Amino acid sequence: MRRDGGEGLSARPGPVTRFRVRRVSGSAVRDRRDDLATEEPLEIRLLAAGGDARTVAITMRTPGADFELAAGFLHGEGIVGPGGIAAIGYCTDEDLDPEARYNTVTVRLTAPELPDMTAVQRNFLTSSACGVCGTASLDALRDRCPAPALRPPVAVSAATLYALPDRLREAQGVFGRTGGLHAAGLFTPEGAPVAVREDVGRHNAVDKLVGWALMGGTLPLDRHVLLVSGRVSYEIMQKAASAGIQIVCAVSAPSSLAVDLAREFGVTLVGFLRDERFNVYACPERIDVEREPSISVAPPP
Amino acid sequence: MRRDGGEGLSARPGPVTRFRVRRVSGSAVRDRRDDLATEEPLEIRLLAAGGDARTVAITMRTPGADFELAAGFLHGEGIVGPGGIAAIGYCTDEDLDPEARYNTVTVRLTAPELPDMTAVQRNFLTSSACGVCGTASLDALRDRCPAPALRPPVAVSAATLYALPDRLREAQGVFGRTGGLHAAGLFTPEGAPVAVREDVGRHNAVDKLVGWALMGGTLPLDRHVLLVSGRVSYEIMQKAASAGIQIVCAVSAPSSLAVDLAREFGVTLVGFLRDERFNVYACPERIDVEREPSISVAPPP
Repeated sequence: MRRDGGEGLSARPGPVTRFRVRRVSGSAVRDRRDDLATEEPLEIRLLAAGGDARTVAITMRTPGADFELAAGFLHGEGIVGPGGIAAIGYCTDEDLDPEARYNTVTVRLTAPELPDMTAVQRNFLTSSACGVCGTASLDALRDRCPAPALRPPVAVSAATLYALPDRLREAQGVFGRTGGLHAAGLFTPEGAPVAVREDVGRHNAVDKLVGWALMGGTLPLDRHVLLVSGRVSYEIMQKAASAGIQIVCAVSAPSSLAVDLAREFGVTLVGFLRDERFNVYACPERIDVEREPSISVAPPP
Repeated sequence: MRRDGGEGLSARPGPVTRFRVRRVSGSAVRDRRDDLATEEPLEIRLLAAGGDARTVAITMRTPGADFELAAGFLHGEGIVGPGGIAAIGYCTDEDLDPEARYNTVTVRLTAPELPDMTAVQRNFLTSSACGVCGTASLDALRDRCPAPALRPPVAVSAATLYALPDRLREAQGVFGRTGGLHAAGLFTPEGAPVAVREDVGRHNAVDKLVGWALMGGTLPLDRHVLLVSGRVSYEIMQKAASAGIQIVCAVSAPSSLAVDLAREFGVTLVGFLRDERFNVYACPERIDVEREPSISVAPPP
């Protein structure tokens, strides 16, 4: 969006935008500059190998990892799978102003035709959670998710989980200063960070991770632990399940539908992971809690 | 959604759902019941007086104030204005299972025909923020917002603002226990609470407030202060501006686009309102900060 204040607007929006703000504390007033998380629309266009094109989504997002976001979004909606994307680029239309070019991404498909969007269409009739709902959509989601029998066994210790929120925050260093960004991180079962993405939208941060894996050929993510910085809604669980993730953790609360979906799809769901505690809402068998003996035992003679 | 655990599922979903969870703290493990914020889809159907009908949105929401949510959502999208709604009811289709009936709301319009949805349609092509984007959409929004010259002067003191977060939390008492609900509250400029609504979606909580005002005939809300419990995105500002709200406050950060919109539409935007501090990102002139004299002055003789 055009910024009237002329505060360092560049053609390509960055993840952080500087504004002049008035800071009030008690009765003290001070004007200063402050960084905010950038929010800009991203239009995602599909281009079939045969030449047909259409816009499938406009989402508000924090610029950065836009190609991953587009790829992950399309994967979560069941529009593309591994091998389905030939190329992704910013729009090169000469008639778009430079700023809009970086807010429009074209995904070139390997398929000659555009996919049938009828089923997808209904999902777009949403105001917030672009979640599928209804039995038909759940069946479609089940078709896309790796079958339980094909999933490798994976387990994580409670001690490893306790350490994850700090690791996520450390990785957030750059943008964390705005105080307004959600983060999503992928970790190994031993707690080593694999990838972290941020966005004003929690679901976008997850899309960016999944898109990163899709473009890197590392889907399904069935040996990884996902941690999101906020709450877990149905939409997050849907995206995680599609990507084959078997352990999903959140710093804050899950919604009822997130728990339903986790139980139905056999995904371990951990909530309120902070201060050396957490709740497990689904599939606790993937978490090892080393129980301390409740009675002290005399050492062997 | 059908809940396999059979944990007190009723035909009409409530705002809170009880689950059995495993709580892990240090090395202690305990199974217990826990309350989570309910998340269920709500399908919003329009029915014109002439008999035509169509689904305009499916949104994930926390049940409760569903009619207000539908009315506020339609208002925020520019689909209905004051006097545009003849009646709102749950779906009475016999072929829907009882649970789905309470997840489908039919809004009967006073107009004989369904509104032209072409402009609205594009907005639905979103995954999260159902925000309009682009100049054409901004112009449409400007047409719906009360003109600056018609807005009454309104001002609020810093001391009043400091007190609002606690008042919002007090009003959240019932559902606050789930730790997973966003809240939005309307207050008078003197800080008296007028209405508070909650939802898993921040934007839904705002829709519920606006729908409450629309159905009660009290739009525009140009003498009220809005406080939201989390961050402020473009979408929240869009809904607030459409409702004529002139002072918007958030406990957490605004996004860059929220600030842009607030400045463009002349709405006061306050962020990080907590612990007796806040930042003002737009239109600070509506906030009175009583400055303490910086040098102590001798009392008059």
